[in-house]
Amino acid sequence: MPKVVVAFHSGYGHTKLIAEHVVKGAASVPGVAASLVNIAELPGPNADRSYPVQWNELHAADAIIFGCPTYMGDVSWQMKKFMEDASGIWFTQAWKDKLAAGFANSGGLSGDKLHTLHTLSVFAAQQSMVWVTTGVMPSIYTGDGKNLNRLSSFSGLMTQSGQGAPEASTDPADRLTAEAFGKRVAEAAVRWTKGR
Amino acid sequence: MPKVVVAFHSGYGHTKLIAEHVVKGAASVPGVAASLVNIAELPGPNADRSYPVQWNELHAADAIIFGCPTYMGDVSWQMKKFMEDASGIWFTQAWKDKLAAGFANSGGLSGDKLHTLHTLSVFAAQQSMVWVTTGVMPSIYTGDGKNLNRLSSFSGLMTQSGQGAPEASTDPADRLTAEAFGKRVAEAAVRWTKGR
Amino acid sequence: MPKVVVAFHSGYGHTKLIAEHVVKGAASVPGVAASLVNIAELPGPNADRSYPVQWNELHAADAIIFGCPTYMGDVSWQMKKFMEDASGIWFTQAWKDKLAAGFANSGGLSGDKLHTLHTLSVFAAQQSMVWVTTGVMPSIYTGDGKNLNRLSSFSGLMTQSGQGAPEASTDPADRLTAEAFGKRVAEAAVRWTKGR
Amino acid sequence: MPKVVVAFHSGYGHTKLIAEHVVKGAASVPGVAASLVNIAELPGPNADRSYPVQWNELHAADAIIFGCPTYMGDVSWQMKKFMEDASGIWFTQAWKDKLAAGFANSGGLSGDKLHTLHTLSVFAAQQSMVWVTTGVMPSIYTGDGKNLNRLSSFSGLMTQSGQGAPEASTDPADRLTAEAFGKRVAEAAVRWTKGR
Repeated sequence: MPKVVVAFHSGYGHTKLIAEHVVKGAASVPGVAASLVNIAELPGPNADRSYPVQWNELHAADAIIFGCPTYMGDVSWQMKKFMEDASGIWFTQAWKDKLAAGFANSGGLSGDKLHTLHTLSVFAAQQSMVWVTTGVMPSIYTGDGKNLNRLSSFSGLMTQSGQGAPEASTDPADRLTAEAFGKRVAEAAVRWTKGR
Repeated sequence: MPKVVVAFHSGYGHTKLIAEHVVKGAASVPGVAASLVNIAELPGPNADRSYPVQWNELHAADAIIFGCPTYMGDVSWQMKKFMEDASGIWFTQAWKDKLAAGFANSGGLSGDKLHTLHTLSVFAAQQSMVWVTTGVMPSIYTGDGKNLNRLSSFSGLMTQSGQGAPEASTDPADRLTAEAFGKRVAEAAVRWTKGR
Repeated sequence: MPKVVVAFHSGYGHTKLIAEHVVKGAASVPGVAASLVNIAELPGPNADRSYPVQWNELHAADAIIFGCPTYMGDVSWQMKKFMEDASGIWFTQAWKDKLAAGFANSGGLSGDKLHTLHTLSVFAAQQSMVWVTTGVMPSIYTGDGKNLNRLSSFSGLMTQSGQGAPEASTDPADRLTAEAFGKRVAEAAVRWTKGR
Repeated sequence: MPKVVVAFHSGYGHTKLIAEHVVKGAASVPGVAASLVNIAELPGPNADRSYPVQWNELHAADAIIFGCPTYMGDVSWQMKKFMEDASGIWFTQAWKDKLAAGFANSGGLSGDKLHTLHTLSVFAAQQSMVWVTTGVMPSIYTGDGKNLNRLSSFSGLMTQSGQGAPEASTDPADRLTAEAFGKRVAEAAVRWTKGR
């Protein structure tokens, strides 16, 4: 049973809401187990460089979808610290050939979210993971009227939110896009796992 | 008299319209001469590696603002070819210490415009130019009601347009932002020139 | 039988030599058909937006590895033009779910090759392809004495060459890394094809 | 008297050594005051969003050169946290029109140092600073025999070090390049300050 984990950090709840929709989309694929891991709650590696049990869900994943806000043009420092905590995994290449994907939320329509996605994909590349792209054609080109992939992002999912409560200040189309994106990664995980 | 040149390529006229507003903003600064150069009309270097006279305006500029559409995630190939035509300038570092800045237009709200801006800034860095950033705070943060820097771009100007005629399918706020951006680069050129 | 195509452009033969080693590595995987396509020789789309027969090998590929020199900080303009020629493929998403990977050669040890790799991966993302990373741990960390992944690149293959003849001015370790990289992409193609 | 501050983080002393050489180069320019600030020692903003006195040196700078190691493909988390601590400065745009520049050190020859430089330049752009590029032509092109800009980096300074003691495991040419880079930024600060 392919496992998809959404590994996220959220400062004020908006990215968490998006993460939940990504999980929802992943879980909609028959046979896929999807779950959320808040990376800000993960303890760092032990003194002997082994990893606390809280990391087990990540180790067991077939695909990990990384997501966080864009703060001052890049991933949040909590996400960056998680990446460095994962350097012991890099050294042994223990996550090699897992699938990876990424998403970024911020207050601006574009802002520097692409840079955040690149930070996530560069990290995944260091881990020798395989990067699954957004795979959701923007509605401005398909004319399906759903406003999917509203921000036209291809390297990963971009969403935009205001400063109010998460439900009220995120766009319904972004939440739908998050579901389509989660579904795509899960389908890739099914295929990739089956082909092992 | 500081000279600001907007060196652009436009596929269907939208980027040209934005370029004209950038020039308008630059020209609004007292004592600045601002002009447009369509890089798609520049002949390549001569056989002896010297440059045809059409390049003189660029050579004489104190600041060059590069702009083009984002096609398939990066600068247009015409812009890229221009960059390679300019490799003889790189070799002699003849543009060293000129100011540079960049803008990108595309159909999506975000898309990969940041990547296009990075291609332009990487090119400017190879030429040892000094990169002037957007400098226009998004109205979503200032609350000035003008919708300036609508897409929240800081490394350069981002604008978005539809597929209709340029005037009708670009956002008035983007055109105003283009003017503010052109003005900022021209003011930097005045300061940089004065300090020589 | 999984098909891997190396789609390259080479200015002076160095990148072509690397491309040949990537193909050699891919072809070493049992059951994989690997071939080279020089994208500078591909005619653009027909007037009716269909593609000439020379594109068939790309259409039929399970994985496409894109590679080119880094000129003035980005992909060569020929590679960029190819990307724009492929915009009709983007519109129909005909290459969706193919695997992709990338490589970049230049004269400097680092230079802006990472930017070139990002241009290639952004293009692949627009095509909704799935990006296979380098997957070759640098010998400086493994201590295997082979000088593999000499430049420590993870998002794709980086190689460096001098200005002499290709054989003489590329590093044997880079050629070996190219083979390991080609092999990795081919193995991923086997797995991805099997899991369909 | 133009002030240049090198704002750095160093994990094991290698980046600190490079930072010291950047300061040395900056201080070699007549009339320039150059100093080091270890950003890992800066306390975050006060509860009322004002900044502790330790930030005064940064506030007073005419140019800030940001530098840190590349860990897992991006700036160190300490540098990223500093950037977020500086978001109150961003909101008031208090650093607008200061000069900025960046450097990155890592164990690989290329690695993802360009991505680190882009994180630094994206941050500087958010602060509406003006980005000064490396400005040191690689010796492989000038033939001066000094091995300057050994890694061929243009958007900022790249250096590479081994895992031994900083003096022993950094390249003398990288240290010289750091000095040339610091000198360039200081000269730009003189010009920019004079032109105010």
